[in-house]
Amino acid sequence: MILEAQESVCAALEAVDGAGKFKEDAWTRPGGGGGISRVLQDGAVFEKAGVNISVVYGVMPPEAYRAAKAAADDQKPGPVPFFAAGISSVLHPKNPFAPTLHFNYRYFETDAPKDTPGAPRQWWFGGGTDLTPAYVFEEDVKHFHSHRGERRGLGGIFFDDLNDYDQEMLLSFATECANSVVPAYIPIIEKRKDTPFNESQKAWQQLRRGRYVEFNLVYDRGTTFGLKTGGRIESILVSLPLSARWEYDHKPEEGSEEWKLLDACINPKEWI
Amino acid sequence: MILEAQESVCAALEAVDGAGKFKEDAWTRPGGGGGISRVLQDGAVFEKAGVNISVVYGVMPPEAYRAAKAAADDQKPGPVPFFAAGISSVLHPKNPFAPTLHFNYRYFETDAPKDTPGAPRQWWFGGGTDLTPAYVFEEDVKHFHSHRGERRGLGGIFFDDLNDYDQEMLLSFATECANSVVPAYIPIIEKRKDTPFNESQKAWQQLRRGRYVEFNLVYDRGTTFGLKTGGRIESILVSLPLSARWEYDHKPEEGSEEWKLLDACINPKEWI
Repeated sequence: MILEAQESVCAALEAVDGAGKFKEDAWTRPGGGGGISRVLQDGAVFEKAGVNISVVYGVMPPEAYRAAKAAADDQKPGPVPFFAAGISSVLHPKNPFAPTLHFNYRYFETDAPKDTPGAPRQWWFGGGTDLTPAYVFEEDVKHFHSHRGERRGLGGIFFDDLNDYDQEMLLSFATECANSVVPAYIPIIEKRKDTPFNESQKAWQQLRRGRYVEFNLVYDRGTTFGLKTGGRIESILVSLPLSARWEYDHKPEEGSEEWKLLDACINPKEWI
Repeated sequence: MILEAQESVCAALEAVDGAGKFKEDAWTRPGGGGGISRVLQDGAVFEKAGVNISVVYGVMPPEAYRAAKAAADDQKPGPVPFFAAGISSVLHPKNPFAPTLHFNYRYFETDAPKDTPGAPRQWWFGGGTDLTPAYVFEEDVKHFHSHRGERRGLGGIFFDDLNDYDQEMLLSFATECANSVVPAYIPIIEKRKDTPFNESQKAWQQLRRGRYVEFNLVYDRGTTFGLKTGGRIESILVSLPLSARWEYDHKPEEGSEEWKLLDACINPKEWI
């Protein structure tokens, strides 16, 4: 199922890009499992687009468990046997008016820590999709949100620790979420990919890419989990843009289009 | 003393840059203390150069304590009262043949955690200086290392948890280290700042800048400590370059100058 999701997302992206093709790498994880990374780099529409799937298992250190599990009340002390399968993707378009998209859907299982045998086995689904624009087009955000259940930041649907229905039902929910990504995102890209832009708008996109890198490397639980369980670094960091910029204490002029984006990030809105 | 160190480093950098001037911001930390950030951006020689000093105190969460302290055998459970003073700097030159320099020297004090009163108060010095070139010039690395005591990676002197001499003596050791930065680095910059370079050499520097961002945001204990104690984000992230690049699975051709740098990063050498 995650293979099919990867295939259909990549096919849709290649079609909209028109020039770039995905390059594929299969990899195995020394501790158990492996994955397939597909990356389209420097295409006509996308600066960088990565779609990873992985099925990994083994034993994870306590720090990785903290990154994997949303609920903090459940601190396992020792190394934790685990199984995880998922799809994750970040799409960075070239045009500053076309938003970056991230999505990730995953299934987790953990056993009792090695030093407390007999504790119950746990499983849960988690995931989300979110939109990271450099400029706000209210109509795009509304279109995107008409596919959502709950929201976080400027856009998306996020859930975690989901295990209070039967597994089959939750699997179809996660599958449906993954299948909604293409119809939610591609129309926005089609609309914005050829919008004319100037150098200073491109520079603003680069600054927002810098902020994306910061969030991704410092706070993203998927990235942290991957790095702490010895995942393949090149696959984990496919999420980073092709290029980014950091200017000290950059502040857009109040009331400008750049300022409106920042304002929307700081003061979340109900879009629909 | 840290004010003087900041002043003398910035003066030496402005002199070698010739065009760029440091911009200064003073800030206070809501939880206690504050600092002064000085940043030179888009100069003639430096793409971005930041020199921060700070004196902060208050109470830090356990994660911040783990970031602050090198020795892992000393896990404090609750919030820890602390005092920290230090200087830290990252200098990114424009020319791809001129190396990036990082240095940081700091003094720490912690009290017993709030829930175990009576436990002893601790203090220690830590710090280091290291060179991050995009190309290896053996003579530059040798020159730089002639100022060192111990080494890590391609270059530098690092120490931590230093508290087994009297405080005054350790303070003069740390001061001497900080004062060695300028004579160790400026001659390398003078030699390399006008070396001709082509586009592909600049692109390699951008890729290495990307790797720098990765190490800095994921692993750097100073960055982690700053972010987890609610430090001023713009000051903490002054260490990031003006721009950076990530290409998927980039591998330099074996035997090339780019490959030699990677090889030296992977297989540490005794340079002198």
